[in-house]
Amino acid sequence: MNSVIDTITGHRSVRKFKDMDLSNEQVEKIVQAAQSASTSSFMQAYSIIGVTDKEKKKKLSLLAGNQSYVENNGHLFIFCADLHRHFTAAEMEGKDISASLETTEKFMVSVIDASLAAQNASIAAESMGLGICYIGGLRNNLPEVCALLNIPERVIPLFALVVGYPDQHTEKKPRIAFNHIYHKNEYKQDMDIYKKELEEYNQVISAYYQERTGNQRSDTWTAQMVGMLEGKSRLYMNEFIKKKKMDLR
Amino acid sequence: MNSVIDTITGHRSVRKFKDMDLSNEQVEKIVQAAQSASTSSFMQAYSIIGVTDKEKKKKLSLLAGNQSYVENNGHLFIFCADLHRHFTAAEMEGKDISASLETTEKFMVSVIDASLAAQNASIAAESMGLGICYIGGLRNNLPEVCALLNIPERVIPLFALVVGYPDQHTEKKPRIAFNHIYHKNEYKQDMDIYKKELEEYNQVISAYYQERTGNQRSDTWTAQMVGMLEGKSRLYMNEFIKKKKMDLR
Repeated sequence: MNSVIDTITGHRSVRKFKDMDLSNEQVEKIVQAAQSASTSSFMQAYSIIGVTDKEKKKKLSLLAGNQSYVENNGHLFIFCADLHRHFTAAEMEGKDISASLETTEKFMVSVIDASLAAQNASIAAESMGLGICYIGGLRNNLPEVCALLNIPERVIPLFALVVGYPDQHTEKKPRIAFNHIYHKNEYKQDMDIYKKELEEYNQVISAYYQERTGNQRSDTWTAQMVGMLEGKSRLYMNEFIKKKKMDLR
Repeated sequence: MNSVIDTITGHRSVRKFKDMDLSNEQVEKIVQAAQSASTSSFMQAYSIIGVTDKEKKKKLSLLAGNQSYVENNGHLFIFCADLHRHFTAAEMEGKDISASLETTEKFMVSVIDASLAAQNASIAAESMGLGICYIGGLRNNLPEVCALLNIPERVIPLFALVVGYPDQHTEKKPRIAFNHIYHKNEYKQDMDIYKKELEEYNQVISAYYQERTGNQRSDTWTAQMVGMLEGKSRLYMNEFIKKKKMDLR
């Protein structure tokens, strides 16, 4: 189609990187791309922490579930939902807007703003021949992450983005069919069709795993999701977010 | 740098479109781009509703604060955080995972997944010469939006994305400086420097408005934010999300 769409649709997560750091220019380009994303009411309700300190990267790697690529990569970005900036702005203006900042609506704004910025960063990095992987495992231990990086109230680290020169070739996993993810004029009402579409997707995923593992693995998408979701994870999150003075009411 | 980064950094929101619909091929390319984004644990926890029905678009435009470009555009996408699919998957597997789906963690996953997908869609659209605008105003009236589009429990419309052939040229608003949004190895601790950076940004924004309006407007970023945030908006959100069986615990 065009090189932008080729970059976007060519995305694969990369979990093994060459031992080469990103240059300052690369980091700046990636952050500039992040900042070019749309932002709700111009709030720019996020921050990015770039971690290069080796000891901190090692600790973050352990906190995120001992994933070696959190330590070994070209650069580690942490994307945070951030309303601390707005709280400070209000202080500078001699006002108190904490009640507004503590609403679920503003929490959502900050999560959305940070995510839009992160995806721009990802695409920009991939366009430069770099590989990326989102690290949701960072949310395993957010209190420790916040202590390690001195993160104040009203700031929530959402995920890390590791970036670097790829040292592996990975495959694209087939996504849910267009007809299932995309609804026309209303959310699909016929649950028989809805389930049939998921069954068809199960066959696609099962065939993908079979081919990839020489028939060692053949699980379906629904079985995979339900197996994973039966284990309730990160149950501290609700209380943690509230302690950070977000999503309170 | 390269055409991908040029597309990303060249982003401007477009709020006036020519009277031309997107083709099915364009819609499919945009959704395919959205689906190529990373997704937490392969959950793909979002849905996209494409609204072409003229009556529904008119109603959505009114619900979103009477913004004409919500009605008049090439295509209207609504991005939803979606855990209904996973609830259904569990039904198909004879399991109950509702307690897991009701956690704040899974709410965050669905908001992040939907946002990453939306930003890919935006960049893809812009790479095709189309303009885009996010419509957070959709969150003014989510119960009505859900009723209009028959949206089930565990699905939250987060924002609309209007796409079309631009019929205006808009300017880029200067973003917060790199040094302020980007923190090195820890969140910036010196509040004097932090505030000084915001004051410097205030001057940039004030000069931008002055030049753009012939000195009719000169408000700073902190004043603009605080003025906007003093009005607590969308206070129903917390209760609404919980009624949808998300972010409960």
